[in-house]
Amino acid sequence: MDQFLDSLKYDANGLVPAVVQDCENGDVLMVGYMNRDAVKATLTTGRTTFWSRSRQKFWIKGETSGNIQAVNGVYVDCDKDCLLVKVDQKGAACHEGYRSCFFRQVDSDAKEEIVLEKLMESY
Amino acid sequence: MDQFLDSLKYDANGLVPAVVQDCENGDVLMVGYMNRDAVKATLTTGRTTFWSRSRQKFWIKGETSGNIQAVNGVYVDCDKDCLLVKVDQKGAACHEGYRSCFFRQVDSDAKEEIVLEKLMESY
Repeated sequence: MDQFLDSLKYDANGLVPAVVQDCENGDVLMVGYMNRDAVKATLTTGRTTFWSRSRQKFWIKGETSGNIQAVNGVYVDCDKDCLLVKVDQKGAACHEGYRSCFFRQVDSDAKEEIVLEKLMESY
Repeated sequence: MDQFLDSLKYDANGLVPAVVQDCENGDVLMVGYMNRDAVKATLTTGRTTFWSRSRQKFWIKGETSGNIQAVNGVYVDCDKDCLLVKVDQKGAACHEGYRSCFFRQVDSDAKEEIVLEKLMESY
């Protein structure tokens, strides 16, 4: 475990980005950041754990909202500076109530359009 | 265009991460970094353009290898600090010859296993 965790190339803040992908339909749900301990927690607990850059604390996805991400598979990229985590997402991944944080499409004129619907609160 | 480019939350180095996803099968291919001009180029030219952090220069994906990424759709996340770019990928996205840079899976014991095959050189 230590060997793998040490092999990752963390940025100046000790973080690697983690792309979270819906293992059911392949949708990219969000990108979060993990430090060494968050990567370890994600691998060992089977729940995505991030380091919140704004709050400077650990953040187990869904801990308060219930919208947990059960880890289905963890992948590391060629440069070992980025992770891909495939998950079984409960409810909305986005704090704004959308299934995915990428709910806005941008066209070639840079016009933005919301292309996903918000999930029901009771989802 | 300027309004959208200015609305993105770039990091201390003036960059946003861009997740590149295969628009055909949904595979996450790579994560690159874009500065303001690279985002603009990606939107206007229809070819993914990144800022190389190691080489400190623009990098049009496939310019030398021929493994271009034709942009199919650009999405921005809720916090506007990350992009998702769906592409039509020619050949390998990874410089090591794999279709995706995420060719290694990591299990709960942090053991790594290569789970993708390299593409043929002639692809």
